[in-house]
Amino acid sequence: MTGEPGGSGFSRRHLLFGGAAAAGAGAAAALGASAAIRAGDEAAGTPDAAVGAAVATANAVGEAIVPFHGVHQAGIETPPQAHALFIALDLLPEVDADALRRMLRVLSDDAARVTQGRAPLADTEPELAEVPARLTVTFGFGPGLVARARSEAPAWLRPLPPFGIDRLEPRWNDGDLLLQLGSDDAITVSHAARMLLKDARSFATVRWSQRGFRRAAGAEPEGRTMRNLFGQLDGTVNPKPGTTEFDELVWSAGQPEWMAGGTSMVLRRIAMDLDGWDRVDRPGREASVGRRLASGAPLTGESEHDEPDFAALGPVGFPVIPDFSHLRRSRSEEPGERIYRRGYNYDEAPAGASVSDAGLLFASYQADVDRQFVPIQRRLEELDLLNEWTTPIGSAVFAIPPGCAEGGYIGDTLV
Amino acid sequence: MTGEPGGSGFSRRHLLFGGAAAAGAGAAAALGASAAIRAGDEAAGTPDAAVGAAVATANAVGEAIVPFHGVHQAGIETPPQAHALFIALDLLPEVDADALRRMLRVLSDDAARVTQGRAPLADTEPELAEVPARLTVTFGFGPGLVARARSEAPAWLRPLPPFGIDRLEPRWNDGDLLLQLGSDDAITVSHAARMLLKDARSFATVRWSQRGFRRAAGAEPEGRTMRNLFGQLDGTVNPKPGTTEFDELVWSAGQPEWMAGGTSMVLRRIAMDLDGWDRVDRPGREASVGRRLASGAPLTGESEHDEPDFAALGPVGFPVIPDFSHLRRSRSEEPGERIYRRGYNYDEAPAGASVSDAGLLFASYQADVDRQFVPIQRRLEELDLLNEWTTPIGSAVFAIPPGCAEGGYIGDTLV
Repeated sequence: MTGEPGGSGFSRRHLLFGGAAAAGAGAAAALGASAAIRAGDEAAGTPDAAVGAAVATANAVGEAIVPFHGVHQAGIETPPQAHALFIALDLLPEVDADALRRMLRVLSDDAARVTQGRAPLADTEPELAEVPARLTVTFGFGPGLVARARSEAPAWLRPLPPFGIDRLEPRWNDGDLLLQLGSDDAITVSHAARMLLKDARSFATVRWSQRGFRRAAGAEPEGRTMRNLFGQLDGTVNPKPGTTEFDELVWSAGQPEWMAGGTSMVLRRIAMDLDGWDRVDRPGREASVGRRLASGAPLTGESEHDEPDFAALGPVGFPVIPDFSHLRRSRSEEPGERIYRRGYNYDEAPAGASVSDAGLLFASYQADVDRQFVPIQRRLEELDLLNEWTTPIGSAVFAIPPGCAEGGYIGDTLV
Repeated sequence: MTGEPGGSGFSRRHLLFGGAAAAGAGAAAALGASAAIRAGDEAAGTPDAAVGAAVATANAVGEAIVPFHGVHQAGIETPPQAHALFIALDLLPEVDADALRRMLRVLSDDAARVTQGRAPLADTEPELAEVPARLTVTFGFGPGLVARARSEAPAWLRPLPPFGIDRLEPRWNDGDLLLQLGSDDAITVSHAARMLLKDARSFATVRWSQRGFRRAAGAEPEGRTMRNLFGQLDGTVNPKPGTTEFDELVWSAGQPEWMAGGTSMVLRRIAMDLDGWDRVDRPGREASVGRRLASGAPLTGESEHDEPDFAALGPVGFPVIPDFSHLRRSRSEEPGERIYRRGYNYDEAPAGASVSDAGLLFASYQADVDRQFVPIQRRLEELDLLNEWTTPIGSAVFAIPPGCAEGGYIGDTLV
């Protein structure tokens, strides 16, 4: 199930791209290959099947599958795919708890099929479904949807408090239902989104959709931290999926009960002023971030994952890692005040006279928005040199319900 | 040089993804790997280097390089990368032949570096240049640019004649300078575009930019024909790069002389009515196209590349491949009336109440637009059932000058 990071797609990529040459990788890879081979492939599970998969790698990226059913929804622990599409829908006024249940059943069924490389029932272009490429579909619920279900909402399920740095545009805010799609293939994302939206049409309208990208599958060694369009490594201090720490920070223990095994998602659309950033020299940039740009190492360290030394002073007595740096301001003394980031870059054709429309789809997952996300954001709002070149222009909060078992549907603990 | 299809990136992918297990593939792969390994890697060219590359595949997609210098520009014979960005610029009024020369020198130097995984001179985020992922930058010249050079233009270098099916929006038309970027990595495309646009800024302004995508590297077996968002195989009858036929159809013999080794490009933005297409049943779709949707085979054949039999009649005496089908209308009796298609899908967030904004960036290359492209388009305009669901909304024609040698620049035969 999705309890192991990324499911079989992850192990399979290890096999096919040789990401981890460590001891035991062979066994894990064979397991991954057999799990990833399509239902109906009789050779699955034998050593020959694993060898076969390792040889027939011409479409390895396309064939990789992430399981849909599980304790948690896929698309969170899953190693980030190259492409993401976040779509928010607003429920039609007449949608009550019964209609909600029908909608969630239909969309869950579509997602369960299309993520496994099988065409959804109403698919009129079934050939486009043949390349799952680690497709995941993750559902999120806004306050409006929970209200329609006549259920109790988590206390944090509401728009974030306003921050002084925000310049929010309503067209990127909020929503009743979130569909988060991820895949290593952009055609797959388009096709899956279209299938889901066709079936959602009787229940809801599209409020916004936001597309983002990271490095392609196979473009960088497995597990490397993403660089954003400022060239910064982005997400260095993330908790590691599959660890106890991750489980505690991300998965809800069940407040309210239907959220057990779920999490929350904050999606912020953050415009980045690439031209302004260009005018800052390299030492200025590194002081703003508190890290070396090339390695991502804290200014007091040598490599990316070194622990920063905030007490270290420079030659004239100022801290080596400036107090106003992003690293210093985002770090809490409180170990529970951490989030899991899984963001994407965006770069749209600029409108009118502007020279770029680029930035970050900041997506973070945490068990409790108020306890984990808000305190970090308050410190960054107060003082963070990066605020000079970044502007939040969209903001949404969703409850991500737990996964479902085969025969169930996403949201079956709620409605 | 780019005379062999796709240069080393092509061969290297064969090695790494095992695309061609045919006899002789080993030798070709070893050659590919050595050519693709970065300048400065001393092991290049030895058998060990090839083996090393085959093992260290974690970032094979990212490391693959397509040579920049050559008889022809890269990005045409190059097997299509997963992502493309087409940018048209308009020259500032004061740009004369001297300034043009300076601009082309600077941009060619940027392209020569960034395509080889080296940061351009003015790159402020050099780390983002480290993943070329088969990046190519292809330059095209509109009539306005050739006029500034005070040179003779090819006779076909002008907007296409108007077609009755066109609903062109000026925001997608024409331009003085085309930058066509392609890479298997979307971050690489964004970064390279930004570097080029920064250096172009003193000479030109952006007129439009259009992004497109195909299947990801490794998502499908090498050489498979692309499916568009209608689910159709798109480009089945393409001439094959590296063949005499391709060379004759695509490369200019030199009218005028500075175009020898160059070609022309037609870029049409074709909106596709996915909702309308959905309402057509499968037999109706196959009749419109003249091919089976699953296999791409002509309705008279069994597999994609079978020759269609236009004379074959069905049970009640009508042609099996309808006269109004896309296949029938686009086919010419004249062997010279062919083009090389290298299109991309687009799928943007819909504006306002519309449910989708998707289609095809139809890009074709041919030695002579008037002789090859226009007759095909006239036949399709007159009668093509696909016109019902497709609408050209943008159109541009560019002269693609030949490649340049090291030390030269793109356009050095012109100005």
